[in-house]
Amino acid sequence: MEKIQQIISYLDHQEASLAIFSDPVSINYLTGFYSDPHERHLFLFVFRDRDPLLFLPAMEMAGAKTIVPFDVVGYQDSENPWQKITTAIGDLPKGIILAEFDSLNLTRYHGLRQVFETDFTDLTPYINRMKLIKSADEVAKLMYAGTFADKAMQIGFEAISLDKTETDIITEIEFGMKKAGVSKMSFETMVLTADNAANPHGHPGANLIQNDALLLFDLGTENNGYMSDMTRTVAVGQPDSFKKDIYNLCLEAQLTALDFIKPGVTAAEVDAAARNVIAKAGYGEYFNHRLGHGIGMSVHEFPSIMEGNDLVLEEGMAFSVEPGIYIPGKVGVRIEDCGVVTKDGFDLFTKTPKELLYF
Amino acid sequence: MEKIQQIISYLDHQEASLAIFSDPVSINYLTGFYSDPHERHLFLFVFRDRDPLLFLPAMEMAGAKTIVPFDVVGYQDSENPWQKITTAIGDLPKGIILAEFDSLNLTRYHGLRQVFETDFTDLTPYINRMKLIKSADEVAKLMYAGTFADKAMQIGFEAISLDKTETDIITEIEFGMKKAGVSKMSFETMVLTADNAANPHGHPGANLIQNDALLLFDLGTENNGYMSDMTRTVAVGQPDSFKKDIYNLCLEAQLTALDFIKPGVTAAEVDAAARNVIAKAGYGEYFNHRLGHGIGMSVHEFPSIMEGNDLVLEEGMAFSVEPGIYIPGKVGVRIEDCGVVTKDGFDLFTKTPKELLYF
Repeated sequence: MEKIQQIISYLDHQEASLAIFSDPVSINYLTGFYSDPHERHLFLFVFRDRDPLLFLPAMEMAGAKTIVPFDVVGYQDSENPWQKITTAIGDLPKGIILAEFDSLNLTRYHGLRQVFETDFTDLTPYINRMKLIKSADEVAKLMYAGTFADKAMQIGFEAISLDKTETDIITEIEFGMKKAGVSKMSFETMVLTADNAANPHGHPGANLIQNDALLLFDLGTENNGYMSDMTRTVAVGQPDSFKKDIYNLCLEAQLTALDFIKPGVTAAEVDAAARNVIAKAGYGEYFNHRLGHGIGMSVHEFPSIMEGNDLVLEEGMAFSVEPGIYIPGKVGVRIEDCGVVTKDGFDLFTKTPKELLYF
Repeated sequence: MEKIQQIISYLDHQEASLAIFSDPVSINYLTGFYSDPHERHLFLFVFRDRDPLLFLPAMEMAGAKTIVPFDVVGYQDSENPWQKITTAIGDLPKGIILAEFDSLNLTRYHGLRQVFETDFTDLTPYINRMKLIKSADEVAKLMYAGTFADKAMQIGFEAISLDKTETDIITEIEFGMKKAGVSKMSFETMVLTADNAANPHGHPGANLIQNDALLLFDLGTENNGYMSDMTRTVAVGQPDSFKKDIYNLCLEAQLTALDFIKPGVTAAEVDAAARNVIAKAGYGEYFNHRLGHGIGMSVHEFPSIMEGNDLVLEEGMAFSVEPGIYIPGKVGVRIEDCGVVTKDGFDLFTKTPKELLYF
């Protein structure tokens, strides 16, 4: 309830009467209750001067009540959710109402607007800012999730064999993780061989692992609601010296950025620290995505580590550092670790070695 | 491009100039290209009198261009997407603009509104209606996906053992599916033993499979972009006669509904057909969700088979029929198959037997 108290203080500060949350991840972050309502509706109403109210599909009520220490109202599929909310709310709160613009779709917006008879002010920047600074407990959870990414990567490395496909290796990684008690990967595991790795969001398939080529692993796990995310690129057989040079260039870019991170520098400067290394070597055009993304209860959240983002880094911000160089038809490399900004640097959640490994 | 042509005809009919798609599943449905942009932006612009335009993160461009036979514009993370769209669009289309309200969040809405300088009309009902009637090709894909759900269920049945946990069995099912070439389950597989099954959206965990109890499996696969979804509840050991009675009541409800489905009846009537069976036996309050949901490229879509939905069923509509009875602390049963409305009935996508099976 500490985080909900923080929302109430913000309402006070904004002289607003109500904050409406519709992002399942935000609701989990604030209450510890997670549910994806799909096309149904899930809202957390945090009032300035009444108890909070969780509104959700009736079938989720029993589960929610074991977790949430305030009112839970469920609606049946056959009921009009907006009427049910109107009844549950009673007297309409007066004054400014905040809502998460990034997660409120127009259908829900129109429904809620009809309930509250007023327009909303965007709450997304505030909740993103809240999520941005990880508490010690959250850092511990991210560290813990990182240890599973390390284990998963190890399983992937051990599975490398020229008679296996990308999918075979993914299967072994995910099977190993399930056995280790991980119920969910944080995104679809990627194992990409040779040219397929030259696509930064390539799709793995029935491609046999190629010899004398690079092999890219991008994977993550979910543990206690917190995500891990790591990428490694390794050598299978003896890739030619051009591929090794590109690998080492990407590694130099990553290490340069990691070394640069500390409170007071901006997200754009961190991006530039890595990008300059690659650009100076003449491969700038092949690093065609931002350097990193925030991580927490979502695998992609703020801060975005990219050109143009003048956000000043602070202790407790957690994000990925993942330069990549993708030269179509030739070579694809990405090296990624997530970590957290400390008093004077950046602590990594994942520890898998980064010098080019040979299999 | 046949489906895009259909959108253009609809624009003609509505005297609208542009349809904006933001739901990744809709974009996949119309173009065959799938990508989840997370917090980035993915839009398909279908114009009445210009070629369509796909707008997406730069890193997705190469992949999209191999699939989509029209203009693809990518934006870098460091670029303003709304400015980039404004430039790519050139002359603003005049007149009515349609957008998917169900998937357009307020942040994107405000961005697009600024680009097009006009408000939008909801496209969701039309695209949902389009997705509602499955073509013969789509039915074949759903049938194919169904065969994998049957295989997955078989693996689950074979894995039943009193020294295993729910998670152990899920691991075996998903490993088997990966080996069979299924890259993705259509949702988190659920295996729920005894009391845990009495929660309609309970979470599996480290619970050992209980003897003399029921065991519920809810699972599905994704094959070629189409989803399967099936639930079976089986007996482990010798559950007491009350549990068996509840099982048989649930089965009777499902069979009654399946038998009732044909073109011309309404979704609400189908729901009532199953619900009345359970209510008459005195357990109506324990069947606390709708009877079914549509299925296609999403595991939950229209039509919703529920009280209050007067939609008249037509040939080609595909949905689940899944009555459930959940008596907290006592017993939980659900039986689910998906199928498609035919000329005079309902063809099931899944064939796993439904009489109470003993393990």
